[in-house]
Amino acid sequence: MSFTRGPKTLQVKADLFVKNRHRLVEALRGKVPSKSAVVLQGGQEKNRYNTDAEDLPFRQESYFFWAFGVHESECYAAIDIDSGKSILFAPRLHPDFAIWEGSINGEDWFQQKYAVDEVHFNDANKIHDVLSGMNASNLLLLKAENTDSGNTLSPANFDGVDKFSCDEKALYPVMAELRVLKTDEELEVLRYASRVASDAHKAAMKHIKPGMYEYQLESLFRHTSYYHGGCRHLAYTCIAASGCNGSILHYGHANAPNAREIKDGDMCLFDMGPEYNCYASDVTTSFPANGKFTDRQKLVYNAVLKANRAVLEAAKPGVRWNDMHELAEKVILSHLKEGGLVVGDVDEMVKSRLGAVFMPHGLGHLLGLDVHDVGGYLGDALPRSNLPGLKSLRTTRTLRERMVITIEPGCYFIDTLLDKALADEKLKKFLVPEKINEFRGQGGVRIEDDVIIWAKGNENMSQVPRTVEEIEKFMAAK
Amino acid sequence: MSFTRGPKTLQVKADLFVKNRHRLVEALRGKVPSKSAVVLQGGQEKNRYNTDAEDLPFRQESYFFWAFGVHESECYAAIDIDSGKSILFAPRLHPDFAIWEGSINGEDWFQQKYAVDEVHFNDANKIHDVLSGMNASNLLLLKAENTDSGNTLSPANFDGVDKFSCDEKALYPVMAELRVLKTDEELEVLRYASRVASDAHKAAMKHIKPGMYEYQLESLFRHTSYYHGGCRHLAYTCIAASGCNGSILHYGHANAPNAREIKDGDMCLFDMGPEYNCYASDVTTSFPANGKFTDRQKLVYNAVLKANRAVLEAAKPGVRWNDMHELAEKVILSHLKEGGLVVGDVDEMVKSRLGAVFMPHGLGHLLGLDVHDVGGYLGDALPRSNLPGLKSLRTTRTLRERMVITIEPGCYFIDTLLDKALADEKLKKFLVPEKINEFRGQGGVRIEDDVIIWAKGNENMSQVPRTVEEIEKFMAAK
Repeated sequence: MSFTRGPKTLQVKADLFVKNRHRLVEALRGKVPSKSAVVLQGGQEKNRYNTDAEDLPFRQESYFFWAFGVHESECYAAIDIDSGKSILFAPRLHPDFAIWEGSINGEDWFQQKYAVDEVHFNDANKIHDVLSGMNASNLLLLKAENTDSGNTLSPANFDGVDKFSCDEKALYPVMAELRVLKTDEELEVLRYASRVASDAHKAAMKHIKPGMYEYQLESLFRHTSYYHGGCRHLAYTCIAASGCNGSILHYGHANAPNAREIKDGDMCLFDMGPEYNCYASDVTTSFPANGKFTDRQKLVYNAVLKANRAVLEAAKPGVRWNDMHELAEKVILSHLKEGGLVVGDVDEMVKSRLGAVFMPHGLGHLLGLDVHDVGGYLGDALPRSNLPGLKSLRTTRTLRERMVITIEPGCYFIDTLLDKALADEKLKKFLVPEKINEFRGQGGVRIEDDVIIWAKGNENMSQVPRTVEEIEKFMAAK
Repeated sequence: MSFTRGPKTLQVKADLFVKNRHRLVEALRGKVPSKSAVVLQGGQEKNRYNTDAEDLPFRQESYFFWAFGVHESECYAAIDIDSGKSILFAPRLHPDFAIWEGSINGEDWFQQKYAVDEVHFNDANKIHDVLSGMNASNLLLLKAENTDSGNTLSPANFDGVDKFSCDEKALYPVMAELRVLKTDEELEVLRYASRVASDAHKAAMKHIKPGMYEYQLESLFRHTSYYHGGCRHLAYTCIAASGCNGSILHYGHANAPNAREIKDGDMCLFDMGPEYNCYASDVTTSFPANGKFTDRQKLVYNAVLKANRAVLEAAKPGVRWNDMHELAEKVILSHLKEGGLVVGDVDEMVKSRLGAVFMPHGLGHLLGLDVHDVGGYLGDALPRSNLPGLKSLRTTRTLRERMVITIEPGCYFIDTLLDKALADEKLKKFLVPEKINEFRGQGGVRIEDDVIIWAKGNENMSQVPRTVEEIEKFMAAK
């Protein structure tokens, strides 16, 4: 069966996940002892504090979803590595479920829906008994340490797990690496999600007027993504920043909740992305609220756009992401130099980490089932730098075909960073304070695209007006 | 200061929470030893599984919010009962917060915003030191056991809490009871939330057309609530059921995600409510997708509407809620008898619990900061019944002025319940199978209003078209 939200939305076949499981078996076979089985535990529903209300409809855990595509909560699953057989353990539902929650489906229904080999309701000791029955003796459990968040996914836990030999190390790097390199089927979903995001961004650009509140555009974005794209969940909290708020990198959370009135003359920075069938998008548009760039806005915007385009061109297989970060800094600083905000040698600026004063965040991150996909420094990543800007990179890997990564250079006027730099012996010589002061308070610009790395040239999945001319024309046509 | 989302939305003054704290001090003074202080712990941000993305913007825990109205996460707060002094402990933020999350506000800012007497950043041992400094020796901590959900809110935990004598029992019943009886200021917010919900329901009724998907109306509802009402959060997962799905009481969750195409001739049952400044609404509308009731739909609809109106009239201070539940059953069964679906003596039907075949859920629940407010059997509640229908009641209390409760009778055609009843010796004599079969598959009707209990007569806060004529007229005018 397929996941879909109607004929205007994408149909995602269960084959996508069948293929992921095959890839996992291929990757593990020969590397792990015979009689090994992967055992995964899906997500569980959570209530708001001590109440009986959920905060948000259940959303499956991403590793579990990658392998099984299962939307239901409270599931387990196993894959026998020797045979490749896949087994889903669905919860045995109380008969009252039919009254309160909906039809109680049989094991057959799950088997068809998710194209797995076997389905069992998870009665007492079922997982233990099924694994024993197929002579699994070495369980590969997922202990996924996310170094971006500092959070760890706990290995599957079920009655009788202690009767097996359990390996919590072998699975994680293999599964994470497979998640990094997307299949054709996954790319199709990511393209769709990015297209929905682009359309919703365009709706916001068409609709905006000074005098509106930031949250109204967040609301329109969410509505467009869901109503037209079938995306119920967002991949992350919407950043709908206007004016000075554009310089707050993760604006939009509960303490800074997109609640400002948008003024004539403001730049907007909207970083918003829905997910479709758990696959994320992550697109940022920056544009003037009134549809017409000022010269100062144009200067900053073009600096960032050139950086975005330079990286889009240069980010080929074999290139390290941290080098792309420095490339983006270089392009931005060159433009700021042309604009008279900084003086001196651009290479020296980059070396002194001046770039991080204007772009304190990393250039981009892997994208997939999570917005910061398989978060952390995995694969061939270099150790995390402790230098400004570079330390914020979410990956330092060498690019490979089928990686999906965001390219999101930015340039911001953040008072605390500017003040610190102006007082810094190494940095102040580059800065032209009078000129920089003219730009303070105008927020920032970020231009973020979702990009597939291909040897033949990258594929930019985001489709929104990008040049100053395109944006002004698009917004004038409203 | 106030909470607002712009001039078209409600302004909620910090006084609302000052008053709540005063009420709490009044209620505890004399009942607890001198040198007692209430200590509460606010909610903490949570990530999606092991990732660094939050699932939803932070939403404060309801008891903490009731007393302090604080939107920021990771806070503590104390109230000295002898003096009435209120103290907020806000987290000491890392300087990088200014770059990533927004301006770092001083203690003064919090003090003004929340009208508390003192604010301290929560540095090491700060809570302990401040409490010691004011000679608090008996801490009243909140251990809130929600018998609806089975979940417990853990008492505040901080370094040095073990140096005090801690009472985890005295506070909960007092605070829960205060939450049940709303102040004028709280009622103003609840009226606003219910008005936003009503407007959004009306938008969905105007917009709906057969051929649309249920989730599109959910999306429109969320958008209308946020865009026009400033309501970012929902009080619960939207139920946007059409056709047979109307008989699934808690439809709309991840396993039944409002994904059906709406057909001509379907009844819709939309149970959706946003929250404003954490105060919940909870409104259900039932109407034909094509705007015109069939005779069968009209029969069921009018049975439920009459039950809703009968309870609205009868639910006075001094009346027990379980009696109202039986009243609703009686009205519904009388109408079903008129329609020829059941035969026999209506009182006998109620006694045999036949009502629960058609309305397996409780008649309604308290409403406030939580949709199922201060969940569980508190105050003068009778013990939970184990009889069908009655066991699903979320409260059995005697009504009092200033309670806010939902009145939500319903009538559903649920195959599993009908089949069971038709095979039940006690129940089958009342049922007319041929007639009932005509109604199977058409889902259900629920009519839910948010009501303030007043001695002078109840106040229905929900304002949506309710009679068959009103609905048909309203939908025809689209």
